Amino acid sequence: MKFNSRTHTCGELRESNIDEHVVLNGWVDTRRDLGGVIFIDLRDRYGITQVVFEPNYNLEAHNIAKDLRSEYVISIEGRVRMRPEGTENPQLPTGSIDVMVDRLVILNKAVTPPFPLKDGVDINEDLRLKYRFLDLRRPSLQRNLLLRHKIYQVARKYLDENSFVEIETPVLMKSTPEGARDYLVPSRLHKGKFYALPQSPQQYKQLLMVSGMDRYFQIVKCFRDEDLRADRQPEFTQIDMELSFVDQEDIFQIVEGLMKSFYKEIKNYDLPTPIRRIPFDEAMETYGSDKPDLRFDLKMTTLNDVLSKSTFRVYQDAISKGGIVTSLVAPGCGDYTRNQLDVLTDFVKKLGASGLVWIRVKEEGLESPTVKFLTEEEQKGIIEKLNAKPGDLLFILSGQKLKTLSIMGSLRLEMARRLELIKPDAEPALLWVTDFPLLEWDVETQRYYAMHHPFTSPRIEDIELMTTDPGKVKARAYDLVLNGSEIAGGSIRIHDSELQSLMFKTIGISDEEAEYKFGFLMNAFKYGAPPHGGIAFGLDRMAMIFAGEASIREVMAFPKTASATSLMDDAPSTVSEDQLKELHIKIR
Amino acid sequence: MKFNSRTHTCGELRESNIDEHVVLNGWVDTRRDLGGVIFIDLRDRYGITQVVFEPNYNLEAHNIAKDLRSEYVISIEGRVRMRPEGTENPQLPTGSIDVMVDRLVILNKAVTPPFPLKDGVDINEDLRLKYRFLDLRRPSLQRNLLLRHKIYQVARKYLDENSFVEIETPVLMKSTPEGARDYLVPSRLHKGKFYALPQSPQQYKQLLMVSGMDRYFQIVKCFRDEDLRADRQPEFTQIDMELSFVDQEDIFQIVEGLMKSFYKEIKNYDLPTPIRRIPFDEAMETYGSDKPDLRFDLKMTTLNDVLSKSTFRVYQDAISKGGIVTSLVAPGCGDYTRNQLDVLTDFVKKLGASGLVWIRVKEEGLESPTVKFLTEEEQKGIIEKLNAKPGDLLFILSGQKLKTLSIMGSLRLEMARRLELIKPDAEPALLWVTDFPLLEWDVETQRYYAMHHPFTSPRIEDIELMTTDPGKVKARAYDLVLNGSEIAGGSIRIHDSELQSLMFKTIGISDEEAEYKFGFLMNAFKYGAPPHGGIAFGLDRMAMIFAGEASIREVMAFPKTASATSLMDDAPSTVSEDQLKELHIKIR
Repeated sequence: MKFNSRTHTCGELRESNIDEHVVLNGWVDTRRDLGGVIFIDLRDRYGITQVVFEPNYNLEAHNIAKDLRSEYVISIEGRVRMRPEGTENPQLPTGSIDVMVDRLVILNKAVTPPFPLKDGVDINEDLRLKYRFLDLRRPSLQRNLLLRHKIYQVARKYLDENSFVEIETPVLMKSTPEGARDYLVPSRLHKGKFYALPQSPQQYKQLLMVSGMDRYFQIVKCFRDEDLRADRQPEFTQIDMELSFVDQEDIFQIVEGLMKSFYKEIKNYDLPTPIRRIPFDEAMETYGSDKPDLRFDLKMTTLNDVLSKSTFRVYQDAISKGGIVTSLVAPGCGDYTRNQLDVLTDFVKKLGASGLVWIRVKEEGLESPTVKFLTEEEQKGIIEKLNAKPGDLLFILSGQKLKTLSIMGSLRLEMARRLELIKPDAEPALLWVTDFPLLEWDVETQRYYAMHHPFTSPRIEDIELMTTDPGKVKARAYDLVLNGSEIAGGSIRIHDSELQSLMFKTIGISDEEAEYKFGFLMNAFKYGAPPHGGIAFGLDRMAMIFAGEASIREVMAFPKTASATSLMDDAPSTVSEDQLKELHIKIR
Repeated sequence: MKFNSRTHTCGELRESNIDEHVVLNGWVDTRRDLGGVIFIDLRDRYGITQVVFEPNYNLEAHNIAKDLRSEYVISIEGRVRMRPEGTENPQLPTGSIDVMVDRLVILNKAVTPPFPLKDGVDINEDLRLKYRFLDLRRPSLQRNLLLRHKIYQVARKYLDENSFVEIETPVLMKSTPEGARDYLVPSRLHKGKFYALPQSPQQYKQLLMVSGMDRYFQIVKCFRDEDLRADRQPEFTQIDMELSFVDQEDIFQIVEGLMKSFYKEIKNYDLPTPIRRIPFDEAMETYGSDKPDLRFDLKMTTLNDVLSKSTFRVYQDAISKGGIVTSLVAPGCGDYTRNQLDVLTDFVKKLGASGLVWIRVKEEGLESPTVKFLTEEEQKGIIEKLNAKPGDLLFILSGQKLKTLSIMGSLRLEMARRLELIKPDAEPALLWVTDFPLLEWDVETQRYYAMHHPFTSPRIEDIELMTTDPGKVKARAYDLVLNGSEIAGGSIRIHDSELQSLMFKTIGISDEEAEYKFGFLMNAFKYGAPPHGGIAFGLDRMAMIFAGEASIREVMAFPKTASATSLMDDAPSTVSEDQLKELHIKIR
C-alpha cells in the first residue's frame, strides 16, 4: 500500500513531458485489452490520461493490471511517450501522449457501481441520492461543484475589495416565526426552551449596521421548514449583504458590479450595465410577472382605454370594478386549431381564469365567437393598439388586476415555450424590479400585511400616503431577476423609530406585539441606527442557472429529497430515549 | 431625513483634500463647545474626522448642532480646511484637517449608551453581551472582526490557489453521537425522527474524497452540546480540509504554506518554515504537554537513568512500575521562601500529585529535606544531567508516566508565568506534534479506545503491532500548536476496509455496531476510496491568539454565555404549543 506522491494530475501531461518519469494516482475509468496490451484511462478530478501496460515493457505491472476493474484506485509510475500515430485522441487535452507503466500499485479495489458513472444516462434520482458519493464522480456534478466554488470565490473577492466585512452570525438563534416555519433545537441546559435555526440573518445584519460595521456580507446557510414543493431545500445558501448610509442606487451599483464579475470570471462575458430597471406595476402590466423573463419580447397590452366604453358585460365589469383587460399577441398563431385553443383555455382556467378570449386576425378583420360584442371602432382600436397583423392570434383576459395579469403572464411563458422563443444561446436577461407595493390587503382578515417584511422602508415621498391611502404606498424594495427567476431581493430598511411605529400601526401590530416580536431590534434602533439597506442572493438558484441545470439539487453536494430526507445516511433518524430525556422532550 | 451619499469615509480626508466640498456620514463620537464653536469628532468604521460648526460660517448648521449628543447619527456637508496651527492631532490620520460644516442633517438620535463605548474600560461582560450591538462599536471589537475577516479571505485565497474546492456540507445531518453530544432538530415531516447538527463534517469530507473531489475545504460552523467550561461555545468555526493521495508530509506542506500566508498578510511577519516537528513522546517528556508552549525554553528532564538504582522508595516505585521521575530547573529560584514552595506544592497537589520534591542548588551542593535519600553519586548525577547552577531551584515529580509529565508540564507553565519568561514581543512558537498513540487504554472498561477517531490510520510500520501490542501503535495523527494552544488537528485516514475491520476489532467494536454507527461511510469505501487525510483548524482560537485576546468571545460577533444563552435576544426561549405539536414533541 506504499505509494509515491503524484508528480502530475491526470489532466496535466502534454507533449512537452515526453520521456519524463511520472507518477499518477487515480481511478480506472475504462480498460481495454488489445492484443495482450492493456490500456487504462486513468481518471482524477483534473482529467484523464491513458496509461499502457505492455508485457514486454514491464511484465510485473502487466500481470497486476490484469486484475484491474472500473473504479479501482491505483498509483502508477512510468514514462511519458508520444502516442503511436493514428491513436491520438483529440478529445482529450492529454490525448497526444500516454504513459508506459513500469510500476503499478492497487490502492483500493471497487465493487461494481449501482449505475454508470457517466453523464447523459437517465438514472433514477433516488438511486443517485442514495449513492451520492458515486453520483458526484460524474463529470456534470464535478463541473457544477467547481462552478459553485468559483461563485463563492468571485463573490468574496469582489465584496472584500468593496470594503465589506465578512461576519458570521449565529445559527442557534431565537425563534421568531414569520411566514415560514422555524426549525427548532431543544436546549439541554434550559428545560422547555428552544433555539431556532435562522430563516435569514436579517435581524443580525441590521444590528451589525447599528454597531457601525458599515458593510457586512456573509455566504450563509439558511433554513425553512416548509413543505418542499418543486425545487426547495430545507437548507439553502444566501449571499447576504447589508450596507449603511445608502440608497437603492448605491445597492444597485454594488450588485451590478458583482454580477459583472460573475459573468466575466465564470462565463467570460461582458455584462452590459446598468441593468434595466422596471417598476413592479410596469412589470405586471407588460409581462404579467414580478420576475419577467426578458430573454424574449412578447409584451402584454392593457386594453382598458380602448374598451372603456365597451357594452360587453365582461369588460364593462372588469373596468368598472377597477380591474383590467389585458391582451397578448401570439404572432403567426392565427391558424391554431380549435383543439389547440381549447388546450390553452384549459391552461388559463387551471390558473383561475373564468375563460380565455381568443381572436384570429384576418386580412378582413378580427374573427372570433366574441367579436360580435365589440364595436367596429373597438375592433379597429385593438388592431391598432396591438399592431396586430393578419395571421396573428390575440388573447384577451379580464378581471381583478394582479390576478388577471399574472395569469396572462403564465400564458405568455407558455406561448414562448410553444413558439420556442427562448434560444439556447440567448444572452442573459437581467433586470431590477423596483417600486413594489409596501403593503398587501388581505381580504380574509381585512387588514394590510407587509409585502416584504415590516422593516422595509416606504418611498420617502409616499410616507404621507401611509395614513391616507396605504395601498398606494410603494416600498424601497427591489428584486434582481435573471431569465425569469428571482435571484436576489432586498430593500432599504426603516431606521427611524417613529416611521417604524407608523408601519406597525398600519399593519395592525400593537405596541405589545411589536415589542414581543421585534423588541431587541427595536431597542437597538434607539441607540443611533444609521440609514441602511441590503440584499440577499439565492446562491443555489443562481448557480443552477449558471450551470444550465433544471434543479438546484444538481448544484448541491448532498441535497435532500422533497420530503427533507437524506437518502444516503437516512437522516432524519430515530434517536435514543436517553438523548430525548437529556433534552427534556418526548415524542407525543 | 433626505441625505446625500458620502463622498469620503471618516478615515479618508488628508491635506490633499483641502478646499474640497465633502459629505461625511457617521456617529457623533465626542462633542466639545469652545467659545461658541462646536467641534464634533465624527466616527465611522474607517476612522474619525473633526467637523466644525461656527455660527459665522453657517448659522443654521450651528443651531442644529447644539442638539447633538454622543452617538447621534448625522450627515454633514462642508469644506475641508487645514486645522489652525497648534490644533493638529498627530494621533489621527485625519488630524491635520477638519471640515467646516455648512449643512447638517440629523439622521437618527440616540439615547445614552449603558456603558462607555471605549476600550480599556472594565465593563461587566453580561452587560456587554446584552448590548452587543453597542459593544461592537468599541474599537477593539471592530479591529477583531476585521482581523477575522482577513483570516477568512487569506485562507480561501490560499486554498483556492492550491486546487482546493470549497464545498458546503449539510447542517441537517444524521445523529451519530461520538464523544460530545449532538444538538438535535425534530422533524416535522417524519414523526419521532430527528436531524443532528454536525460536530464536524468529518464523514462528508471523507465521502467527498471517495467521490474524487481530490481537495476539499470549507470554513464551517460546527456544534457541540457540551457543558461550556472555560472558553467553549456551542457553535464554533473550523477551517476544514481533506486531501486525496497524500501522506502526512503533504499536509504539513500545505498547512505550513497557509500559516506563512496568515503571518505575512495579517502580521507582515515572515514565518520560517518548515515548522518544527516533535513526536508526542518527546513533547510529553520535555514539556509535559501535547501542546507545549515553546515561546520559552525551560525543558523538563527525565531522571530515570540517574536514579535507576535509587534506594528512595518513591523513585524506586515509580521506575519499577514503568513510571517516570521527571525534573525541572527553575533558574535563579534557589532563594524561594518556604512559603513560596508551599504554594507550588499545593499547585501540583491540586493537579493530583502526591507531593513536590524541591531542591536548592548551592555552591556546596544540593539542599533539601529529601536530599538525604539520594547518594552522593546520584546528587552529582542530577547536577550534571540538569546542568544545574548554584542559585537554581530543582523540582522532581515521580509516578505514572503521562500523568506525572502532565503535572510537571503545568508547573513548567506556572514557573514561566512567575519568571515572566513569555515576552510580549515573543515570536510565535509553532510546532507540529506527531506520532500520537493510536489507542488509549481505559482502565475502567478494560478496553482500548481510539485516541482521535476510529478512522485514523496507524503508522504503516506499526500495523503488525495492532495484534501483538496495540498500546505501542502510533497514529498518523498530528496537531498544530501555536503558543501552547492546539489550533489544528488531523490525521491520515484508513481507506482500506481490511485495516478498518482490524481497527474496529482492536477497539472492541462488533461488525454490527460498526455497520450501525459508520455504515454509510463503510459502504462508500467499497466503491474505490483513495488514500486520504485532512486537518481542521479551530478558527475562533486562532483568531483569538492573532488578536492577542484572552477569550474567543472577543473574536465572535454574537457569542453565547457559558450556559449557552444569548443575552441580547434571550435565546433559547419558549415556543408555542402549536409549534411543538407540529413537531410531534412535548416537554417532559
